Amino acid sequence: MEMDTIAAISTPMGEGAIAIVRISGDEAVNIADLIYQGKKSLKEVETHTINYGYIVDPETNDKIEEVMVSVLLAPKTFTKENIIEINCHGGIISVNRILQLIISHGARLAEPGEFTKRAFLNGRIDLSQAEGVIDLIRAKTDRAMNVAMSQLEGKLSKRIQKSRQDLLETVAHVEVNIDYPEYDAEEMTLALLKEKAHDVKADIENLLQTAQQGKILRDGLSTVIIGRPNVGKSSLLNNLVHDNKAIVTEIAGTTRDVIEEYVNVRGVPLRLLDTAGIRETDDVVEKIGVERSRKVVGDAELVLLVLNYNEELTESDEELFHISKGKERIIIINKTDLERKINMERVKQLANEAPIVSTSLIKDEGVDELEEAIKVLFFQGDIETTDLTYVSNTRHITLLQEALRSVSEALEAIDAGLPIDMIQIDITKTWELLGEVIGESVHESLIDQLFSQFCLGK
Amino acid sequence: MEMDTIAAISTPMGEGAIAIVRISGDEAVNIADLIYQGKKSLKEVETHTINYGYIVDPETNDKIEEVMVSVLLAPKTFTKENIIEINCHGGIISVNRILQLIISHGARLAEPGEFTKRAFLNGRIDLSQAEGVIDLIRAKTDRAMNVAMSQLEGKLSKRIQKSRQDLLETVAHVEVNIDYPEYDAEEMTLALLKEKAHDVKADIENLLQTAQQGKILRDGLSTVIIGRPNVGKSSLLNNLVHDNKAIVTEIAGTTRDVIEEYVNVRGVPLRLLDTAGIRETDDVVEKIGVERSRKVVGDAELVLLVLNYNEELTESDEELFHISKGKERIIIINKTDLERKINMERVKQLANEAPIVSTSLIKDEGVDELEEAIKVLFFQGDIETTDLTYVSNTRHITLLQEALRSVSEALEAIDAGLPIDMIQIDITKTWELLGEVIGESVHESLIDQLFSQFCLGK
Repeated sequence: MEMDTIAAISTPMGEGAIAIVRISGDEAVNIADLIYQGKKSLKEVETHTINYGYIVDPETNDKIEEVMVSVLLAPKTFTKENIIEINCHGGIISVNRILQLIISHGARLAEPGEFTKRAFLNGRIDLSQAEGVIDLIRAKTDRAMNVAMSQLEGKLSKRIQKSRQDLLETVAHVEVNIDYPEYDAEEMTLALLKEKAHDVKADIENLLQTAQQGKILRDGLSTVIIGRPNVGKSSLLNNLVHDNKAIVTEIAGTTRDVIEEYVNVRGVPLRLLDTAGIRETDDVVEKIGVERSRKVVGDAELVLLVLNYNEELTESDEELFHISKGKERIIIINKTDLERKINMERVKQLANEAPIVSTSLIKDEGVDELEEAIKVLFFQGDIETTDLTYVSNTRHITLLQEALRSVSEALEAIDAGLPIDMIQIDITKTWELLGEVIGESVHESLIDQLFSQFCLGK
Repeated sequence: MEMDTIAAISTPMGEGAIAIVRISGDEAVNIADLIYQGKKSLKEVETHTINYGYIVDPETNDKIEEVMVSVLLAPKTFTKENIIEINCHGGIISVNRILQLIISHGARLAEPGEFTKRAFLNGRIDLSQAEGVIDLIRAKTDRAMNVAMSQLEGKLSKRIQKSRQDLLETVAHVEVNIDYPEYDAEEMTLALLKEKAHDVKADIENLLQTAQQGKILRDGLSTVIIGRPNVGKSSLLNNLVHDNKAIVTEIAGTTRDVIEEYVNVRGVPLRLLDTAGIRETDDVVEKIGVERSRKVVGDAELVLLVLNYNEELTESDEELFHISKGKERIIIINKTDLERKINMERVKQLANEAPIVSTSLIKDEGVDELEEAIKVLFFQGDIETTDLTYVSNTRHITLLQEALRSVSEALEAIDAGLPIDMIQIDITKTWELLGEVIGESVHESLIDQLFSQFCLGK
């Protein structure tokens, strides 16, 4: 594969103490050397060294920046290509000038994610590891970071590779048996096939068991608070936000209008939707509130339905139960400091299996129980065991589900006594689907799309 | 001076491709080594090398990040202390975790600008060079960047040092003469004193001649557009903003409400004030417009006064001339595509010396002339000569003005035949004032205040 030399600013935009321009490719060192003035030429220095000097525009001889240039020669680099990192004072103008100079001396502006894409294309990391890189950058909690880190390290890749290897050996064995039937009894081959398919199926199931948790850890649990006006939705929101340190207050580049509030509730990252709506509309007409709730509930994975202990259930309350049916939900009976007027029997009936928590948010009572209920609902087991390999990425989950289906079909075919080459088709399909997780046998368009999610300079 | 080990995140906050945590101080290497796992201990590697490995929480053994650690041993570093730079994937959570680990293992969170302050306190750079660092970061145009870079390189420092050296030698000569009068005739000492004081005065004057331009290059020229409703203020603003690429569209950390628009007009960075006001109030009642103009003109260095070619001058127009009196201003006669109704004689009379430019903004005519007028008004000479040492910093300008005053007083004292020890007081004062520019003999509180303007991690 012929690859040109690419360059980009790899630090976030804005005034900062350090800005980095990164170059990767065969010509990285030559290009950087053209605009660098230091004690030695960059072509003469050792790999993995840091070199002090100036970036100088060779046409005007203007000194642009005082810099430290890292020289990293292939293959032990992020992209497996020659890499230059120019570490400079973090001015917006100067760092852009440096990038322009590099471009005008022969490099091409990198696309978002292109450095990581090269790491993948050059075989340093597989696709699931590359996806771990982006997850690590985007992680909103410590646990999410751990999940991403373990994926980046290749823990998921290793398990997938092991299953694929098992399947491959089995298929090879079957091939041998088809070609030289005298070497093996057909029953023995079938028994082996069944055993291996079983193992792989179990492993896929194991991985998928972590999927729900993994996905929540990675993306946050989209959560809405619904309830009639004045039942205490705002208080609940404030309680959750202030008790638990907000995970992300603000990220550069996101629009303020659509920002959601993230809170970390006992390791469960809640992504609170429509918080502006709650703050604005706590005293609007009931009818509008219910309509609005219907809309936001649609996108949510967790519904917190707030009721008033001090009032009888209304038609609107019943309707809120109705529109949140089928979602994971927690029923919160608020204002327990006041007299009970609510019909608890009816609440239990409506709640069905959903947990019910009593709170007096004004007195700060019951919030602990609510937080515990959230944790239990999503992390039945102990979420602190660290050596679990979580599957957290929707793409991976979908592929694993398909692989599970196809290995199950293979097992059914064995039990049904179907011909061995039919079984082999299912096994091969399983092998291919697992391969897609780590980026073997995937379409180029998928790769392009995946890496375009990265930020510039990564 | 006893200095502890400090640490901070040195890249702008936000999701990015690379984030850097920087540590400086005696314990930098030891602390980093406690949380690093790589091929070699960081204590064993060479200085100015880059080392691949992982950051690991030693208590939980959790891998936090895949990193490249730069080891820079004193004294050839930014702070002249041992420096560690941990270069990691740019996740907000992981980079904060790394910083926390470093802090919990013995480093202290650095104050804004503290790394640069150490570079100053440890004698690697002087105060004016340190100020050049911050100017470089904040530079809004290429020219401003060049000015800052030359200051960072020490060009200003060298000129100041030369003048100080001259003064010091002269004073020493005078001292010798006072102690051993037999060695020299008093007239000869006086002649020497006068010659040196003259040279220094000329040099300070030279430097101060660049001050206006330097300050504009550094801070931008605060500019307002005034005029009655519907004369074309919005069109002028749009023309300036769209013709010239906006220098800064948005900087992280600045509040949207107060953002001003920067445009680079032929090397003159205009800081357009009250642009929101123009966009909002182009069709408000005239009276309010004039009041508003009076307010904003107060802060401006350049006033662009727009008149309507197609209307007779009104009382409001005359008032706008009045309130902008004493400011640098350019009179813009817009709508020349329409019939002339304005009294040009009266305009010329009111404009006095101010340049008058005719435009038809709707037809995009006259904007070039306006831009040229702006350039000429502020950069009479050729602004492309690059080897000028610009004085751009208000603190420096004030000190140089005081030094000029005191060296002039010395010269007057010589001419007036005052006793030599009186003259010596003025000379010594000049020497001290020049010293303050480069940070010799300055108060600690001033130093603290200067460095607190820096960003965190610098």
